[in-house]
Amino acid sequence: MHFALTILGNNSALPAHGRMPTAQVVTFGDQLFLVDCGEGTQMQMSRYKIRRSKIHHIFISHLHGDHYFGLIGLLNSYGLAGRQQPLHIYASPELETILQLQLDTAATQLPYPLIFTPLIPGQTAVLLKEAHLEVSCFPTDHRISCFGFLFREIRKKRKLDIEKARQYEIPAYYYSRLQEGADYQHKNGSIVKNEWVTFAPPPGHSYAFCADTRYDEKLIPVVKGCDMLYHETTYLQEQSGEAAQRFHSTTLQAATLAQKAGVKKLLIGHFSSRYEELEPFREECRQIFPHTELALEGTTYLI
Amino acid sequence: MHFALTILGNNSALPAHGRMPTAQVVTFGDQLFLVDCGEGTQMQMSRYKIRRSKIHHIFISHLHGDHYFGLIGLLNSYGLAGRQQPLHIYASPELETILQLQLDTAATQLPYPLIFTPLIPGQTAVLLKEAHLEVSCFPTDHRISCFGFLFREIRKKRKLDIEKARQYEIPAYYYSRLQEGADYQHKNGSIVKNEWVTFAPPPGHSYAFCADTRYDEKLIPVVKGCDMLYHETTYLQEQSGEAAQRFHSTTLQAATLAQKAGVKKLLIGHFSSRYEELEPFREECRQIFPHTELALEGTTYLI
Repeated sequence: MHFALTILGNNSALPAHGRMPTAQVVTFGDQLFLVDCGEGTQMQMSRYKIRRSKIHHIFISHLHGDHYFGLIGLLNSYGLAGRQQPLHIYASPELETILQLQLDTAATQLPYPLIFTPLIPGQTAVLLKEAHLEVSCFPTDHRISCFGFLFREIRKKRKLDIEKARQYEIPAYYYSRLQEGADYQHKNGSIVKNEWVTFAPPPGHSYAFCADTRYDEKLIPVVKGCDMLYHETTYLQEQSGEAAQRFHSTTLQAATLAQKAGVKKLLIGHFSSRYEELEPFREECRQIFPHTELALEGTTYLI
Repeated sequence: MHFALTILGNNSALPAHGRMPTAQVVTFGDQLFLVDCGEGTQMQMSRYKIRRSKIHHIFISHLHGDHYFGLIGLLNSYGLAGRQQPLHIYASPELETILQLQLDTAATQLPYPLIFTPLIPGQTAVLLKEAHLEVSCFPTDHRISCFGFLFREIRKKRKLDIEKARQYEIPAYYYSRLQEGADYQHKNGSIVKNEWVTFAPPPGHSYAFCADTRYDEKLIPVVKGCDMLYHETTYLQEQSGEAAQRFHSTTLQAATLAQKAGVKKLLIGHFSSRYEELEPFREECRQIFPHTELALEGTTYLI
């Protein structure tokens, strides 16, 4: 399944140096999922040719403005475009109050259903389970209630042990049934058990978005072994005091977490506006975790 | 006094065709005033080098999102930049509730005072009176409570009738006192009345922003004779039915109002996203009112 991530914004707190606040689009097959929605996200979608009608689920990590101020504008624009398909929003419950107040004040009635799923402070939960994808949320350590999101591909097809299948003289046309878990019965009535000729499905790919957070080893088991980990690096290492105080992370902290969790790739973002140059972020992380990339606006990363 | 208008956004409803929602900056002397603040206004300020620290007063015409969704982000950014000077906001009273809810939810305490002046539905009011400038609001005819704003330069210096001043043998050093309204006393005790040697001050320049509105002849006495009138033209004339239904105006309506009010110049904006080309707007208006200009983003118009 095509599984990728496109960055629409990588700056923290406010737009600066041509960088926009947090917003990411996860592509899975033919579906798009929006993660956070800072001011200007709808403009970024136009700029980077994101097909916004393919988005049915929006995940908001927390209610600091740089992660959601663009949402009301996007919802409004969907309405003006005549959207009718339901839109699911996963966020802290206060968001529903804020959006409803803004809609009521404008006497706006959206032409599509808005379906809220509240994220309960401190609680892990499965938010979405589809045939091939599961999305769950997990709490992070931030100044206000904040969540990361884990996108995990579900693989159902078992892996065929083709040599064994031949030994048991199973005809090739039946292989796809074997991958689905079926046993095989020979004409003489003897049964070949599925587990004799297949392996368990390989684990699906996964993407963990860790939102805003202080360095928090409780995240390690949550993101363990994932294919791509997005971890914030608001600050370079020399600002570690400021990072802790403001409930953010540094480069070395993100890289350490990636290393301890054994992820395959680390993507870093949410850069403080005090930094115009981003290259030092990558360099510092790579000292500990070589497979580090900068989350760059308009860039798509395969998961 | 330097008196000018810079357009930051000229589109209606949502960003489209590279056009942004409504926001304008009025420059008067050394001060800047923000009129409306659609999503992305703070980015537009950076783009067009608007010195945002010079803004102390923000006027919001009404609470449709394309006129205020960028405000909370701007307020936040002021806070992050350490602003301490008070900021005055003139808007429908619900805006205070919306902003306060967003600030509270984020546990954000702005480091500067935010001072709200509510605009009472249907009421005209003087909002601001300074030595050389008066700003007032007036209701327009829109789907929800909506206001235009009139910026009027106050000229206090009387105009000197230099010939008369010479006839009365008033020494030149005293001319500036005459302009301030003083009488002159000769050494022999005889008095020259101020009104014998001066004329009343000429009227100051004025700018009328008519926000979103249907064609409304009640606006004529309000904007009469102003130097620049901004009037919305959401639609070309052929969409006059839609304009009326949606409480907006067409080109010919804006031009007719400009003509009947005898303004010096008409600036048009708030273009519907259905139009990619703007030139037809200007052409239609000029059939009735030749001194019509398009409100173009990043462009400054002298008042």
